[in-house]
Amino acid sequence: MHFELTRDFLDNLIEVIEKKDEKKAAEVMAEMRAVDIAEIYDSLNLDQAKYLFLLIEDREKAADVIAELDDNDRSRFLKVLPDEVIASKFIDHMDSDDAADVIADLPDERQGEVIQKIKDIEQAGDIVDLMSYDEDTAGGLMGKEIITVHINDDVEKAISEIRKQVDEVDDIYYVYVVDNDYILRGTVSLTKLLLASKGSEIKDIYNKDVIYVRADMKAEDVANLSDKYDLVALPVVDELGRLLGRITFDDLVDVMREEAEKDYQMMSGISEDVEHSDKIWRLTRARLPWLLVGLIGEIIGSKVLAGYEIQLATHAALAFFLPLIAAMGGNAGVQSASIVVQGLANGSINMESTFKKIFKEFSVAFINGVICAVILFGYNFFFSDSFALTLTVSVALFSVIIFASLFGTFVPLALHKLKIDPAIATGPFITTSNDIFGLLIYMTIGGILFTLI
Amino acid sequence: MHFELTRDFLDNLIEVIEKKDEKKAAEVMAEMRAVDIAEIYDSLNLDQAKYLFLLIEDREKAADVIAELDDNDRSRFLKVLPDEVIASKFIDHMDSDDAADVIADLPDERQGEVIQKIKDIEQAGDIVDLMSYDEDTAGGLMGKEIITVHINDDVEKAISEIRKQVDEVDDIYYVYVVDNDYILRGTVSLTKLLLASKGSEIKDIYNKDVIYVRADMKAEDVANLSDKYDLVALPVVDELGRLLGRITFDDLVDVMREEAEKDYQMMSGISEDVEHSDKIWRLTRARLPWLLVGLIGEIIGSKVLAGYEIQLATHAALAFFLPLIAAMGGNAGVQSASIVVQGLANGSINMESTFKKIFKEFSVAFINGVICAVILFGYNFFFSDSFALTLTVSVALFSVIIFASLFGTFVPLALHKLKIDPAIATGPFITTSNDIFGLLIYMTIGGILFTLI
Repeated sequence: MHFELTRDFLDNLIEVIEKKDEKKAAEVMAEMRAVDIAEIYDSLNLDQAKYLFLLIEDREKAADVIAELDDNDRSRFLKVLPDEVIASKFIDHMDSDDAADVIADLPDERQGEVIQKIKDIEQAGDIVDLMSYDEDTAGGLMGKEIITVHINDDVEKAISEIRKQVDEVDDIYYVYVVDNDYILRGTVSLTKLLLASKGSEIKDIYNKDVIYVRADMKAEDVANLSDKYDLVALPVVDELGRLLGRITFDDLVDVMREEAEKDYQMMSGISEDVEHSDKIWRLTRARLPWLLVGLIGEIIGSKVLAGYEIQLATHAALAFFLPLIAAMGGNAGVQSASIVVQGLANGSINMESTFKKIFKEFSVAFINGVICAVILFGYNFFFSDSFALTLTVSVALFSVIIFASLFGTFVPLALHKLKIDPAIATGPFITTSNDIFGLLIYMTIGGILFTLI
Repeated sequence: MHFELTRDFLDNLIEVIEKKDEKKAAEVMAEMRAVDIAEIYDSLNLDQAKYLFLLIEDREKAADVIAELDDNDRSRFLKVLPDEVIASKFIDHMDSDDAADVIADLPDERQGEVIQKIKDIEQAGDIVDLMSYDEDTAGGLMGKEIITVHINDDVEKAISEIRKQVDEVDDIYYVYVVDNDYILRGTVSLTKLLLASKGSEIKDIYNKDVIYVRADMKAEDVANLSDKYDLVALPVVDELGRLLGRITFDDLVDVMREEAEKDYQMMSGISEDVEHSDKIWRLTRARLPWLLVGLIGEIIGSKVLAGYEIQLATHAALAFFLPLIAAMGGNAGVQSASIVVQGLANGSINMESTFKKIFKEFSVAFINGVICAVILFGYNFFFSDSFALTLTVSVALFSVIIFASLFGTFVPLALHKLKIDPAIATGPFITTSNDIFGLLIYMTIGGILFTLI
């Protein structure tokens, strides 16, 4: 079954650490899975974590623990370890992609030192290769651990090739078929090999229709591709089609989750990847920036309203609906922006022309704007004494919903064109701009209608 | 390589359909992958889609196309097909989990009819079994296609068992090891089997440490578990530990993505799963409900302000900062709520007591509130003539940030306790409540300070 972290378990473990009961602590580490050990890091101090982690006897597991820690925790942990320990106890036993990530996270001056202390020369070479790729590309996600067979092998030869290579690969999802130039020609599954009759040739049983990616493909696009085709592993090739490595589904799931979280956080006005369990200072730092952006924007909004002081003093009832106009503009704008942002993220938005997108958005906003404006008109018609106010508020609400919806559609599309993350359009910056424009629209309409009626 | 849907491709395809060029159309269908065929559905009308889909010769592919369509598209498509065609052309060739989903989507009166027309009795039995599980549980996600070997088999016997079963399983990720009572004892990988020496016994090479789930486990929890342990497939067992089926990573990725999208949409104030490519009417229907909730809330807000008419008429400058107070309360509240909602979704929030959570949130809000209030005080101190206003606005901003943050933390925790989706707390309902309370706080503080100063 799986492990559940409880307060009791933690208290017992900390007691074991404090008593320096090495035997017991090593036993607990031997029983736990790597990812569960990584999970308890947050609840320990650095000395306790160091004591425990160095007691992990299985080297592969120790390496996995380090790979599973989040970037901040890992940096703090590796800072207190000498280069030799990092290289021999951890890096030497990691998959090449995890190893490259860990080394990339070290301070620049330590990276070379640690790499030089790696005993497995092939591993060191793979790491140096992998570090040359941008981390947001297929190359940055791939690992070098792949199993290949030659297209001219027969099944027996292929199986003996696999035997030779299997040590370094944890999970063989596909066996890749290559030719003399190491160009990827296809895949063959273990099932096929296991069930093939003696003497069959790889070229007769392999699958030619393989989906692969180039090393420079964007990580997000790779994740969308693997999600669409339900791929458990994706081979990565260079410009010539030569096989470089493979990306496994777990790393792509991480990319998807991070993208989704980034968009979610942007909409919440949070600027860093934080969790409720983080320290107060980190939570504050993640939240203050967008609050300040909102504050400055709204100060400008107050300045705009100050320009209408006389009007507001004469018709105080105009003020009653200021929050309504601002809020409804914000709501409509965020709806539009978030639909566009999701469409851009999953690539579903490309089939329509920009004009058609804007027209569609206008239609939706028109219907919703009319319905909301009519309801508000009805309410004020019965409960307000001033027909000028009744008309102003309804016309302004309609106009603001239209404006905010179009603005909310246009801004993420424009940001995307400019190669800026369109998710910004769902955050406080745009909501605040929407507020300001909304107030301007409202007060202008008010100015006209109160003069006319 | 992979397929990219272009306008040109579509125009050509539609021309082929209109010319009734069956040979060419069948050729195109033979070349395309199932998921790509499903993707073009949106760009065709029902007759065109029917014409094309019935020309798919490979039955497995035809079944996959149906499985890949989204629920709405599928219902519309199946409505125009007779029961026999659905059963024999599609259901008979689907994985049991997809088949059960498709049948569950049919109108109640058709379900029995279609099931009776399935020729493969085992498949029909599996579907009936699977339909008894709630779709939001492990049972609702699992498929019956698994490969099992007996714990007392030797490797040769095991391989011949696998040969017998392999036909019905697309991707063998693990071979499950069971005993006489069909109780799950562990797994053995194909690699191990392929590389095992002749005469080895399963019981000496299988992996006992397997992570499994009970059929009644919630889908979201299953997805979190597989994400945490990077599992490509998860076996599902009953109360006695007997193996029922397996869930593959692609279905769990879908669960994760749907959960993330639901939370995102809730925060955007969208009530249905829509995409920008959907019809105007659907987009409108998904967006209107929360706009109306916001509208009604803000009408109440305007009513609250109407209670302060004299105050607003006397000190018109108070109105300048109404949108600021409302917006900042909204921003702070959404930040808090979204962090709690994410923590609840990924289970990372459980280690702290509710008191500690609230205290932490208070600390963060206190720091951010002080910083924002001081900045606003400084601005007004230099640019406003009224010290009463300067003080009112700053004190109110501080109070509103504290209130909204605590409210934003408390509401999702309470909803979670009440077994209501906590994501509602990030939507317009709570933002609007926050607005109303914020305005009350602001006007009350204004009332006190303008009298005193």
